[in-house]
Amino acid sequence: MTVHGARAVQRCRTLVEPPFSETAGQLFRYWLGTSYRHTLAQVQIWMEEAGMVVRLDAVGNLIGRYEGTNPASPVLVIGSHLDTVRNGGAFDGNLGVMLGIELVSALNENDVRLPFPIEVIGFGDEEGSRFPVPMICSRTMTGLIHAVPQGVTDAQGMTVAEAMVSYGLDPARLRDAARRPEDILAFIEPHIEQGPCLEAADRPLGVVTAIAAQTRQRVIVKGQADHAGTTPMLLRRDALAAAAEMILAVEKRGAAGTGNQVATVGQMDVTPNTSNVIPGDVWFSLDMRAGSNEIRDRLAEEIRSDIRQIAERRGLEVSFTTPQQLAASACSPEIITRFARAIEKVTGEPAPQLLSGAGHDSMAMAGFCPMGMLFIRSPGGLSHHPDETVLVEDVELAHRALLAFVKEFQS
Amino acid sequence: MTVHGARAVQRCRTLVEPPFSETAGQLFRYWLGTSYRHTLAQVQIWMEEAGMVVRLDAVGNLIGRYEGTNPASPVLVIGSHLDTVRNGGAFDGNLGVMLGIELVSALNENDVRLPFPIEVIGFGDEEGSRFPVPMICSRTMTGLIHAVPQGVTDAQGMTVAEAMVSYGLDPARLRDAARRPEDILAFIEPHIEQGPCLEAADRPLGVVTAIAAQTRQRVIVKGQADHAGTTPMLLRRDALAAAAEMILAVEKRGAAGTGNQVATVGQMDVTPNTSNVIPGDVWFSLDMRAGSNEIRDRLAEEIRSDIRQIAERRGLEVSFTTPQQLAASACSPEIITRFARAIEKVTGEPAPQLLSGAGHDSMAMAGFCPMGMLFIRSPGGLSHHPDETVLVEDVELAHRALLAFVKEFQS
Repeated sequence: MTVHGARAVQRCRTLVEPPFSETAGQLFRYWLGTSYRHTLAQVQIWMEEAGMVVRLDAVGNLIGRYEGTNPASPVLVIGSHLDTVRNGGAFDGNLGVMLGIELVSALNENDVRLPFPIEVIGFGDEEGSRFPVPMICSRTMTGLIHAVPQGVTDAQGMTVAEAMVSYGLDPARLRDAARRPEDILAFIEPHIEQGPCLEAADRPLGVVTAIAAQTRQRVIVKGQADHAGTTPMLLRRDALAAAAEMILAVEKRGAAGTGNQVATVGQMDVTPNTSNVIPGDVWFSLDMRAGSNEIRDRLAEEIRSDIRQIAERRGLEVSFTTPQQLAASACSPEIITRFARAIEKVTGEPAPQLLSGAGHDSMAMAGFCPMGMLFIRSPGGLSHHPDETVLVEDVELAHRALLAFVKEFQS
Repeated sequence: MTVHGARAVQRCRTLVEPPFSETAGQLFRYWLGTSYRHTLAQVQIWMEEAGMVVRLDAVGNLIGRYEGTNPASPVLVIGSHLDTVRNGGAFDGNLGVMLGIELVSALNENDVRLPFPIEVIGFGDEEGSRFPVPMICSRTMTGLIHAVPQGVTDAQGMTVAEAMVSYGLDPARLRDAARRPEDILAFIEPHIEQGPCLEAADRPLGVVTAIAAQTRQRVIVKGQADHAGTTPMLLRRDALAAAAEMILAVEKRGAAGTGNQVATVGQMDVTPNTSNVIPGDVWFSLDMRAGSNEIRDRLAEEIRSDIRQIAERRGLEVSFTTPQQLAASACSPEIITRFARAIEKVTGEPAPQLLSGAGHDSMAMAGFCPMGMLFIRSPGGLSHHPDETVLVEDVELAHRALLAFVKEFQS
């Protein structure tokens, strides 16, 4: 008998080098690129070997179907994405697709047919590595995108429509990729955690309760540039010192909750950025995420209020760009319960429940059909990094949990 | 009778446009450039009109001499620099030279000859706008530089020697510009304050006690880059949040003294500097200045100790580059007293005493001959900026104070 977890891991590792990567020595695969075509050809072979019938949909998603006993039944979809970030890791996205294939393979090798069909899907562009519009593929599938995005180009200046044509897809037929909610039982996505929580808890698997609500904003601080040698401390309006105080307030607010929220300043720009001039202007990014829209909104309001008070006390001006908001995507309570049960069954321990701070194709599925995610421990919490990895025994447990989950899905 | 202060101001304003600036619309004049040649030709005319005999020294300083009654006497030198920063102001440096010319002009129009000669000097490169080695001219004059600096080039790739040759100077004769200390009575430099202290004190003029001791350093903070969405606040090693805490410590230490010190973080670099990634690496500049080497060293040690503690508490690594140190340059106590007396005479108020946080050619003179500086109020504290300005009435008072100073210099 094949050890399915080990094979899933080995296949992910196979896909990191050319022709499955655009670059040798570091993994980079983007939607509708050459390495994407090679990868889909390879994954199609694996899907067919597992017993699936494979098709490419109108937006470039690869879909393998394993029929059940009732051909009229809605389908259980399992999937994740096949694209990567530049210099990415082998398991982000890809592992979810490989686990879907192993699931079907395990059913097929034992001649098990369920009362419903299973489809394994490899989405094309979760990362937004090619175009600055992520998740065109999953959002087209759920009808959130109705037409080819206009006005964006890739690094070579190619439009989305041109990229589709060059791959052999017809932009005019994009909507053919849309599915009907009544045809889908549920969507489940196995994925590496990309964070340190399971490792810190010493657990191989976790069940996701929701994908975090996000707010992204810029904070623009306006002080007064002055000579660093001639301006006494008390007469300064130092935009960087003010920003420093603001960053500590962001950190404190982020840490003040129940652990269900994070707040990050990741990007910063200082003007004039010269060692002997007091900074006159600073802007920094603000990334705030929480388990619900309400918690996220309260966090964002507290942080903005802190920032305004710091600016006022220091006599500086502060302004904010219009926030970019992403609503929280709750996982289906029933799927959470079923995943928890399956994890407990294969690990012998209660399943940790986690919030996903990162975005996923599952966000596009929430509101369309019942959605759920299974997280696999990320050693070191590393992701979007060539050292991103998994433990083979964890992946094997994930495989068994998925098998238990689907076998009991309609019980 | 000419209103000398007004003429000095007007002449500075004349020199902001081509041919006296390399660029139209913004002032930029560098040592041995085309605009430098035009400026020296114009300033020479003004010096000669004021009654001086003018020469160019071996390093490109312009020197006008007004004889006294005793041709064997050492000389009183008054001067400042004629080069500017890019997009600089009209008064930084230039005003000191113009005030020297007005001083001689006022003596000459009243047929006053002092017991000692006066020389007015326009130094060539205080700002280091052309080569990354500032004050070659004044340091050559005082023997601190013995040979043409090697291994540095300007933005066009020209060496110092090539620039000298192109201007008609002989690099081999550089040392001819050196003076003997016994030939110089004192060096005095009138200069705009470039800071807000005189304005805050509502005084037109001030006397400088010393040019600050400086330490410049880089602080390198090493944390761990992680996903901003998936890494809980308590598991982060955020290099930017640590740097923010360090910057506030720098600000607090700078402000903790008697007003005789400043500490500034002006430059910062964040890696990877992406809104959704926790910063893994940050470096920032540290500029610390104080009225004495001892105060500066204590300040620097306190700040480094704070920074190490913050890094340790947060579990981050921190390192420092080798500091660049500039010793404090004390002004001559006798000149301080005499300037204070002259200022009090013309303003009717006690003279404010200031520390110069900025560097000046006077630093090259300290240790060579008695040195002193007179500061003129900088409206808004602005300098190195096109809006840099002065009040005409302040400059007139400066002129009168200089006149009182030289008339009583040997009394």
